[in-house]
Amino acid sequence: MARLPIGSTSVIFIAQRSDADADGYAQAAHAMDALAQQQPGYLGMESVRGADGLGITVSYWASDTDAKAWRDHPDHAAIRDAGRDRWYMHYSLHVAEVVRSYDWVKP
Amino acid sequence: MARLPIGSTSVIFIAQRSDADADGYAQAAHAMDALAQQQPGYLGMESVRGADGLGITVSYWASDTDAKAWRDHPDHAAIRDAGRDRWYMHYSLHVAEVVRSYDWVKP
Repeated sequence: MARLPIGSTSVIFIAQRSDADADGYAQAAHAMDALAQQQPGYLGMESVRGADGLGITVSYWASDTDAKAWRDHPDHAAIRDAGRDRWYMHYSLHVAEVVRSYDWVKP
Repeated sequence: MARLPIGSTSVIFIAQRSDADADGYAQAAHAMDALAQQQPGYLGMESVRGADGLGITVSYWASDTDAKAWRDHPDHAAIRDAGRDRWYMHYSLHVAEVVRSYDWVKP
């Protein structure tokens, strides 16, 4: 992700996967990525999962209003229920307003 | 990471590792983790690296002043130079002020 606009919103989602339903999870994750990209104010997303099943996904939004609209999207809410039911052992979610942003690429 | 205080500061560091100097990197990462934990206002850190070498580390600070003090710590600055020289292909760093925070654990 390149430099973010000051005042934009980052959503940090940190989740421990269960071992259950890998195919269902992968399908849902793919569908949510695609749907997020179509939402107003979507700026980007970055996601990493380690071998132990802990994952961090950060999504970026032009405004907190946009982040809340994505949170409240009915398809997203339904997937969240499935996540709590089947895919996650625990998660944290932190919403934060960008105050500084830098980007570096090896010259 | 449990729920964060509203108004605390999150530092999102997303970096692509090079293949170079795995031992030196691991040693430095360990030393920086230990040093960060001793800094004023340190609330916690979470880090994940995927098989492709992309990593996301999020550190949490009581205030932006604390996050800036850690940025300016001389040992941290020296390691950053080594990172640009040897360990990273590119990175982004986003500093953001927490406006909402949630935590969920499977009942």
